[in-house]
Amino acid sequence: MNDQTPKPRSRAGGRNARRALRSAPNFEMLPGLENTLPLCEIMSGSQVERIDNASMDILENVGVHFRDPIALADWKRIGAKVVDETVFLDRALVRDLISTIPSDFTYHARDPQKSVRLGGRNSVFVPMTGAPFLRDLDDVRRNPMLDDLAMFHKLSHMMPALHSSAHHIVEPYDHPISQRHLRITYSSMKHSDKMFMGMTTSPKNAEDVMDMCAILFGEDFIDTHPVTTGNINGNSPLVWDETMLGAMRAFSRRNQPVLCSPFVLGGANTPASVAASVAQLNAEALSALAYTQVIRRGAPAIYGHYLSTVSMKSGAPMAGTPEISQMNFMIGQMARYYGVPWRTSNTLGGAKTFDAQAGYESATTLQAVMHAGANYIWHSAGWNEAGMHCSVAKFIVDSEQCAMAYRMAQGLNWDDFDQAIDAVSDIGPGGHYLGHPHTQDNFQTAFFMPELFDNNSIEQWVAEGSIEVTERALNHARKLLSEYQEPKLDIAKDEELRDYIARREREIPAADELNQEY
Amino acid sequence: MNDQTPKPRSRAGGRNARRALRSAPNFEMLPGLENTLPLCEIMSGSQVERIDNASMDILENVGVHFRDPIALADWKRIGAKVVDETVFLDRALVRDLISTIPSDFTYHARDPQKSVRLGGRNSVFVPMTGAPFLRDLDDVRRNPMLDDLAMFHKLSHMMPALHSSAHHIVEPYDHPISQRHLRITYSSMKHSDKMFMGMTTSPKNAEDVMDMCAILFGEDFIDTHPVTTGNINGNSPLVWDETMLGAMRAFSRRNQPVLCSPFVLGGANTPASVAASVAQLNAEALSALAYTQVIRRGAPAIYGHYLSTVSMKSGAPMAGTPEISQMNFMIGQMARYYGVPWRTSNTLGGAKTFDAQAGYESATTLQAVMHAGANYIWHSAGWNEAGMHCSVAKFIVDSEQCAMAYRMAQGLNWDDFDQAIDAVSDIGPGGHYLGHPHTQDNFQTAFFMPELFDNNSIEQWVAEGSIEVTERALNHARKLLSEYQEPKLDIAKDEELRDYIARREREIPAADELNQEY
Repeated sequence: MNDQTPKPRSRAGGRNARRALRSAPNFEMLPGLENTLPLCEIMSGSQVERIDNASMDILENVGVHFRDPIALADWKRIGAKVVDETVFLDRALVRDLISTIPSDFTYHARDPQKSVRLGGRNSVFVPMTGAPFLRDLDDVRRNPMLDDLAMFHKLSHMMPALHSSAHHIVEPYDHPISQRHLRITYSSMKHSDKMFMGMTTSPKNAEDVMDMCAILFGEDFIDTHPVTTGNINGNSPLVWDETMLGAMRAFSRRNQPVLCSPFVLGGANTPASVAASVAQLNAEALSALAYTQVIRRGAPAIYGHYLSTVSMKSGAPMAGTPEISQMNFMIGQMARYYGVPWRTSNTLGGAKTFDAQAGYESATTLQAVMHAGANYIWHSAGWNEAGMHCSVAKFIVDSEQCAMAYRMAQGLNWDDFDQAIDAVSDIGPGGHYLGHPHTQDNFQTAFFMPELFDNNSIEQWVAEGSIEVTERALNHARKLLSEYQEPKLDIAKDEELRDYIARREREIPAADELNQEY
Repeated sequence: MNDQTPKPRSRAGGRNARRALRSAPNFEMLPGLENTLPLCEIMSGSQVERIDNASMDILENVGVHFRDPIALADWKRIGAKVVDETVFLDRALVRDLISTIPSDFTYHARDPQKSVRLGGRNSVFVPMTGAPFLRDLDDVRRNPMLDDLAMFHKLSHMMPALHSSAHHIVEPYDHPISQRHLRITYSSMKHSDKMFMGMTTSPKNAEDVMDMCAILFGEDFIDTHPVTTGNINGNSPLVWDETMLGAMRAFSRRNQPVLCSPFVLGGANTPASVAASVAQLNAEALSALAYTQVIRRGAPAIYGHYLSTVSMKSGAPMAGTPEISQMNFMIGQMARYYGVPWRTSNTLGGAKTFDAQAGYESATTLQAVMHAGANYIWHSAGWNEAGMHCSVAKFIVDSEQCAMAYRMAQGLNWDDFDQAIDAVSDIGPGGHYLGHPHTQDNFQTAFFMPELFDNNSIEQWVAEGSIEVTERALNHARKLLSEYQEPKLDIAKDEELRDYIARREREIPAADELNQEY
């Protein structure tokens, strides 16, 4: 029983094959996550109904501003009470409208192998977007250019846990604002064959994105298959503006999903109460979700939100606070109550550098959204400084953290349980398992081994140059980029996309850039 | 409805009182946590039984080494099968023995206001212990001295979320090993009136701790009231040694709780399988828990474990991995299945400095143990470098993170929900809440504002000296220590404790220090 050198069993591959497997870079995308964690539901059924009721009261009695003549006309047309720009939404109308939002659907990627399901327990990780600065490969904070955006699209393509190349991970400053959405969309499409997001910076820009999607996938195909995602931010409390509503119409008309995202700074644009903040946010999300169905019945739409709480000392938004976790748990419950997929924000940091603060904040948020059962897990890589910069180092580490959370949420492997228990008998008290055949066969997959975290002794760490995690991650990013291979894009489609961009760039005045709708 | 300056309501205190409250340091200990989070149970009932069954098979057929003649004699006496040092435990015997372990109990602190309940949904945060190095107030890594230990005991006393001053948070190198347990215990008792841990470095040392507890609380009192905690580490797989078993007897005989802690390096001293690792660990924990009841029926005991997974690249233990989270969820289920309180390890970092790696690892573990519903949440402050050092900076940040997790686990406040919803009507679409009376009344408590995290703009951060979290935390520690007030200790008891230490130090040869039982 104490035999520590049990008989070797025949195994496929053997030691050399395993060693090769261990050192080979693996860029293969993980399939869409099926989250098996028990849902963290912190409200009782009656508390869910209390939120629902408060939200419906708000929609009926306080109303929502739709600052957009077309939306106001649409609401009037279907019988809602409209006073100036305030729309009062009857709960029966809201419930009827949202009832046709699909509870789940499949996102189609350019590589069909990379299509992913969303809704129910199916989740995807999407990198951050919208950073006006980056911390680059030398950890220098500066304005990003199109090449920097391309770099992030390449990294998104290569990090296994990321299911999307998103859109403007960083704002490319070397191209006129008015034409930027074209270059951003092309970069997303070109540098990765994963799914991507579509710019919603104006209704016309959103139409351009739709046209480019139609070129890439075919007009008929996109009319029946989600291929991209637009984000529609609300102005909390209770306002949707013309830019966002126009962009929503461009997407929803063509059956492409939008995130209906109230933008919550808890305590500043919501009451100083977690439960009431969620009730207000829920009313806001419902009003936008309902409008997607006014635009097109049955169009996919996603319950969104951006969550921050505000420091009453400084007015600054905070990340990784307990109330953000609680609100995530609650919003998950509300979205499931309505049968609509939901979006959250992940790995948010408020630190100025990639220090321990960023680590705590990011991991706290990641764990919360996994237990909350979020579906569209946005801002999953790179976000620091309250979104003001995307850090290359953090992008890499966050992506690996998502892979680790993915593993946690996948659940347990019981397949080899009996063999593993036999190993306990083989080894017996006082032995060790390193040489046991079961260990040899399973160590690659049994325990996740992070690439970016150093667990060596301090002596070894010092001998290797005392490299902290930022530098390790930047080295990793450089290595990835040196190994990047652009996924093949059909030449005819590529030409058509370039022609479209060239034509639109002739049509859109670049000089207008400081005065456009963005 | 859009009125942003609603009528002021009369409020207690007013703005100046609130400002004072905001800036006043608050050292008051949080009450023991009643965790309201839904338990994250990743095993079905039948999977729990499968683990139980596998563990019982191991106890019956593989057996456990009790490398201690007294324990072997004890087991023989009550009818267990003993072959050499292997004890084979029948499942009926195990179930009978553990049935008398209290499912919850109260720890009595020197200040009765700081007594805390343990078990069920009641949890406590306890700082790390056992570090051979510290990173000090200048972030310098060096060997600790008794003064450093005192500093950590003072910080434990002052950080609100810590419920214990533990014992040897760091190893004090300026005192002979053989007498160190006396000074450590005295430092814990003297510098804080929270509960503390008791050294188990040898059976005799454990007896000294018990004697000192009897002086502090009274011999009769401790015989019926838990006042301290001893840790009993197993040598996985399936071995308990003489030192640990003798220390356990010292504690259990006098009715003081011990943590029965298999020491798991997943994949090295357990099979390369999460489920089978838990089955082995469970067998180990049960064997020790059962032995506590052989020593004294009804004595409190705690299901323990130390969990790490091992990098198969380097052999190094890892922290914050997905399998550690999963094992925490599972162990929680097993402990509840047996009706025994359980201990876990919190905020473990493997980083060499207080960098982002440490942040991710620590927060991941903290969130996992909260969702797992752990009771005795040990190593909750300071642990980095796989336990090789305790960092002052990390100690402070971890403690605040525990306070944040505490808030999350406390659950929602619904008391002011209707008033907060009224505020939504008051403010209406497009307003802001900062001046609303409900906000003024509730902003202090509605959203947690971390002291240690900087959420200001980068411009403000740079203007204030670009201070990263390590330096901020060290500044905070210095400020705390400058404000420390030693809690009053009864003079007669203090003298008796000092006399006891003086006598024992005469009796215990200091020269023996390199050759003692530690």
